[in-house]
Amino acid sequence: MMTLHYFPGSCSLASHIALEEAGADYRAELVDLKAGRQRSSDYLALNPLGRVPVLVVDGVALRENAAILAFIAQRFPAAGLAPLDDPLAFARVQGFNLFLASTVHPAHAHGVRGSRWADDPAAIAAMKAKMPQVIGDCFDMIETDWLRGPWVMGERYSICDPYLFTLARWLEEDGVDPTRWPKVEAHRRRMVERPAVRKVLADEGAVEPLWRKTVA
Amino acid sequence: MMTLHYFPGSCSLASHIALEEAGADYRAELVDLKAGRQRSSDYLALNPLGRVPVLVVDGVALRENAAILAFIAQRFPAAGLAPLDDPLAFARVQGFNLFLASTVHPAHAHGVRGSRWADDPAAIAAMKAKMPQVIGDCFDMIETDWLRGPWVMGERYSICDPYLFTLARWLEEDGVDPTRWPKVEAHRRRMVERPAVRKVLADEGAVEPLWRKTVA
Repeated sequence: MMTLHYFPGSCSLASHIALEEAGADYRAELVDLKAGRQRSSDYLALNPLGRVPVLVVDGVALRENAAILAFIAQRFPAAGLAPLDDPLAFARVQGFNLFLASTVHPAHAHGVRGSRWADDPAAIAAMKAKMPQVIGDCFDMIETDWLRGPWVMGERYSICDPYLFTLARWLEEDGVDPTRWPKVEAHRRRMVERPAVRKVLADEGAVEPLWRKTVA
Repeated sequence: MMTLHYFPGSCSLASHIALEEAGADYRAELVDLKAGRQRSSDYLALNPLGRVPVLVVDGVALRENAAILAFIAQRFPAAGLAPLDDPLAFARVQGFNLFLASTVHPAHAHGVRGSRWADDPAAIAAMKAKMPQVIGDCFDMIETDWLRGPWVMGERYSICDPYLFTLARWLEEDGVDPTRWPKVEAHRRRMVERPAVRKVLADEGAVEPLWRKTVA
């Protein structure tokens, strides 16, 4: 039994979806970020950064979304979530997830958590002001360079897809118009049709921005 | 034959060392960041982010250090650079490298490339001012939580080690006193004793901050 420590709609959604797609036997444990639970001593023992997700497996706390996603793909090979027998193709998968982890997610964080990198309120406001442009540049690259369609890596669904879906769901709250990227938008619509995605969104009680727009 | 696109002393040093440790047949191609070569159209075709490293393998351009490091470990299993048969241990390795890629390296970048995230010169100065504190917090975690010793993952050298070494080499220029972390400092000294590390530093013409201090 694995335990995923998550917060609804946060980046942990990617690992949550992957566990569900893999058919894993797991328990999802809410870390209430709004109540500051990520700064409790027991949570910091799992991850001194105080961030989700953490996946506890056999008493070992795995950290970092992209590492957890690769673990799920390797631990459940029958789910076919990554090209495990082809290091070159696997490195493409990891390269995309690393781009999300080290460039796109930090870009988003400058809009909501600028105090990580500066103390001056004016500086934090300046980061927030530029964030939509930086995020836009990132999604330009995803649209033109990375996203092959129908899935990120082409015909085969992989651990890239829930991660892209998770970050693309933040576009509206980042003040960025998602219709600028038709392939990304189509990818999101494809994702919310998947049973595993629907189940996880329901389990997390996550509000789906796409549905808010189209079903309202 | 693989081609590594690198710049001396940049984060590409990690992949460069790993290729050498693996005994790979590779060519190292300098991307002169100071002359703006990373913004040339042919380089942007390899990596639209305009960053090093890129490892070209069989015509495929692999991007992102942590993905390239995992690829090298998988492609050269005899070198023993990662626990390839143990997904849990592999995820620990990846988790550390992801922490470096998505938290430590971006923290450093706020000291030298704040214009990525804000336009206002005062905001860029505020990021630069806070950077040593953020980097210090990161290395506190490395020292107390991640670095088992003698190597990052314990007795076994892995793709975590050249990556940590690469980022720890920036401490002096980041205005942070590296002697605050005795385990990290000992790790650096252990690293520069390795023949592969010495060869790559010489090939890159990289100045070793440790040697500057201790051999002068």
